[in-house]
Amino acid sequence: MSGAPVRGDGPGLLRAIESRLPGLRLLVDEGDREAYRRDETAYLPAGLPLAVALPVETAQVVALVRLCGEFDVPIVPRGAGTGLSGAAAGIEGALTIAFTRMDRILEIDGENLTVTTQPGIINARLKAAVGERGLFYAPDPASYEQCTIGGNLGTNAGGLCCVKYGVTRDAVLGLEVVMADGTLLRLGGKNVKDVAGYGLIPLLVGSQGTLGIVTEATLRLRPAPPPRSTLIAFFPSLDAAGRAVAGLTAAGLGPVTLELMDRYTIRAVDEVHRLGLDREAAAMLLVESDLPGTAAVAEMDAAVPVCEESGATSVIRAQDPQEADWLRQGRRLAYRALEHLGVARMEDVGVPRSRIPEMLAEIEAIAVRNRIAVGTFGHAGDGNLHPTFVLDRDEGDPAVVRLDAARGELYEAALRLGGTVTGEHGIGVARRDWLVRQRGPEAVEVMRSIKRALDPRDLFNPGRML
Amino acid sequence: MSGAPVRGDGPGLLRAIESRLPGLRLLVDEGDREAYRRDETAYLPAGLPLAVALPVETAQVVALVRLCGEFDVPIVPRGAGTGLSGAAAGIEGALTIAFTRMDRILEIDGENLTVTTQPGIINARLKAAVGERGLFYAPDPASYEQCTIGGNLGTNAGGLCCVKYGVTRDAVLGLEVVMADGTLLRLGGKNVKDVAGYGLIPLLVGSQGTLGIVTEATLRLRPAPPPRSTLIAFFPSLDAAGRAVAGLTAAGLGPVTLELMDRYTIRAVDEVHRLGLDREAAAMLLVESDLPGTAAVAEMDAAVPVCEESGATSVIRAQDPQEADWLRQGRRLAYRALEHLGVARMEDVGVPRSRIPEMLAEIEAIAVRNRIAVGTFGHAGDGNLHPTFVLDRDEGDPAVVRLDAARGELYEAALRLGGTVTGEHGIGVARRDWLVRQRGPEAVEVMRSIKRALDPRDLFNPGRML
Repeated sequence: MSGAPVRGDGPGLLRAIESRLPGLRLLVDEGDREAYRRDETAYLPAGLPLAVALPVETAQVVALVRLCGEFDVPIVPRGAGTGLSGAAAGIEGALTIAFTRMDRILEIDGENLTVTTQPGIINARLKAAVGERGLFYAPDPASYEQCTIGGNLGTNAGGLCCVKYGVTRDAVLGLEVVMADGTLLRLGGKNVKDVAGYGLIPLLVGSQGTLGIVTEATLRLRPAPPPRSTLIAFFPSLDAAGRAVAGLTAAGLGPVTLELMDRYTIRAVDEVHRLGLDREAAAMLLVESDLPGTAAVAEMDAAVPVCEESGATSVIRAQDPQEADWLRQGRRLAYRALEHLGVARMEDVGVPRSRIPEMLAEIEAIAVRNRIAVGTFGHAGDGNLHPTFVLDRDEGDPAVVRLDAARGELYEAALRLGGTVTGEHGIGVARRDWLVRQRGPEAVEVMRSIKRALDPRDLFNPGRML
Repeated sequence: MSGAPVRGDGPGLLRAIESRLPGLRLLVDEGDREAYRRDETAYLPAGLPLAVALPVETAQVVALVRLCGEFDVPIVPRGAGTGLSGAAAGIEGALTIAFTRMDRILEIDGENLTVTTQPGIINARLKAAVGERGLFYAPDPASYEQCTIGGNLGTNAGGLCCVKYGVTRDAVLGLEVVMADGTLLRLGGKNVKDVAGYGLIPLLVGSQGTLGIVTEATLRLRPAPPPRSTLIAFFPSLDAAGRAVAGLTAAGLGPVTLELMDRYTIRAVDEVHRLGLDREAAAMLLVESDLPGTAAVAEMDAAVPVCEESGATSVIRAQDPQEADWLRQGRRLAYRALEHLGVARMEDVGVPRSRIPEMLAEIEAIAVRNRIAVGTFGHAGDGNLHPTFVLDRDEGDPAVVRLDAARGELYEAALRLGGTVTGEHGIGVARRDWLVRQRGPEAVEVMRSIKRALDPRDLFNPGRML
């Protein structure tokens, strides 16, 4: 990618940053910049940043945006780089602003159930800090021990418990945002309900750094729910597991977690972590309740016969929180376990819940047709699946050709079933060609007109999403 | 208002509609049009529509938007006219499109927990239709027996149970929208999670018909929760009631309803409906739980001591669903009861929950200072209060002067406490001067740039909100 065209006056920008922001940490060595080239999306080409700025305060971000505008150098905002769409990967010759040092919690407000934080904080650290106060921040991407809140805001991240508590967008009450002309906006605050003007917050959340750069967020908390009641169930077919998911909904249950893993993933996890999972099962469901008092156990009591009537070969209930955590970890470690088997490219399709069995059958057929191993796991409760293609490390280009074919068929299948090419990871670069296919040219033109209105010079993350 | 300037070629538009849409019901008689001049906002001047169109299908709406563009006649979209911000009131010489005949439910999908509907359906009728299938549509504005889903979408309406289940925006999965150039967009669908592109749906919801006109919506349902466990508690001071609200949060309770009424409102309701409320109490709270099994009763068991420790003089628990419904009706009828006492102008301020006691004190002082009676009720659980000024029917203009002064002080107080001038009713016309005060000129300019991008000729509801 070193030969890609580069926009703006990079050397002029670097000189200006050094003279006007002498206290700012700025990485310019090639080795350092190389570390910010990629995110976690396998097989995705990415550019080398001109430099990487690591601001510690909002004023530095405002100054950087203004200078980049002056020198016409694009900006890539970045959190921990755990993204799976390429939205935070480098753009050749652009300035990457990494928020990992803007990681302070500014206020935990127990009375109003809010936390105000800088964006670079790691999701798990925020959870732990509010947890010490008996409070709970719900969104929990599987990468929550690595990913930042800023990245979560960029992609509108989901996670394992969003089937009950909603996605990142639902948790945002206030934002401080630097716009492309350097204007600093403070939007919202601590009001749970507020309809004064357009919903700029939900527009900015999920825009992958293309409309504004978040420098502070006020997030909604809940009282910490009680310990969960947890079960896992093994099924002889994907179809049986799909029937169980539908049955849980039909029974009126509202679990906090309703996750699925297929046989390939079960085996990968068990191989690495030796959890004693049923390796012969075609699918496993993880079901959890966090209702208060005896209601959690009652909800799991009601889930057991639903699983059994759907054909479960075994149902295991955690006897205590330690055992529950252990079962849960199996699901959380799915992606890492698959990475032990080769290069893992995780996808993120979503379908209306009732179409999950069909989508699972499509995924299996696509993998066979394209001769690629696939492990599928994901959020069965909200129809969001992560088929993860696993490729031989040594195969090289022929594998990529097959991968691209398989990805195309995967997206086609999801759209045919009324679904989406991305449930929670984002369009980014990786799925950019598919946005028009899914949304239609008219809707994408509306998005483009908003981008032009808010960032007319295409300074923020150009070429991403739209 | 008959002398207000009128834009576009109205007579030309009417001739074109009559020739090109012969099947469309179009009201042109002055008496008929007069019925669409106002919404429910007291003391708000409004214009007489040029005509009122009552389409029955999307294609008619698209044709109307294109014709209005051609003849440069603005459009006011309207539901049942129960709004309290003037957003659906008439604009002199504009075409009002009333959606009350586009009221068909198109599909109830029990497997995917969605309902797809035309926008003109009344909220209560939608609730009843999905209820017959054991399903539940959560957003429940107090006017739910009159207001339409389309109006709810326009204002991002809240209601009594949104403290637990979220507001209208949180319930929208898909929209069909006519844009200002006549383009028909279909956004989203039945996917619970979907991050492909910008969040156009949450941007359109709450935009009060200024960015697009909704012709169909797919809304999220839940399994019908069990019957509620209900209590009401009376307090000797507003402060004591405020402490109880904070105490319920601190106790980790998550009631589905947490509503407040002040003494003036209690007396008005009891005068009209003879419910046997404690007329000497300074405040009443309505608290409800819809947790499954025994958890609802347990949650109310836990709420009782919190109320008592905060100073409640009496706590009454409903013994059965009929009694619960009867207690709940007291709160729902608050506004109508106040209307018995004079002309009621309902306001809609919100504050961070912890500031409720201060806001209540401010409201009382403002009423005294301006010599206007006020009854306050509202959604204490999410900080959204409806101080309702009650004016003598015969007083006329002097009352309006005092009302405007009181409203200004009310908004000032809400903003000083970190609140909003509107929690769920919208900016509309009534609070338009206050949008910049609350959001700041930069944020409003961002909103304006979005409006210009999506409706460059200002065809949709001009002069509203922005």
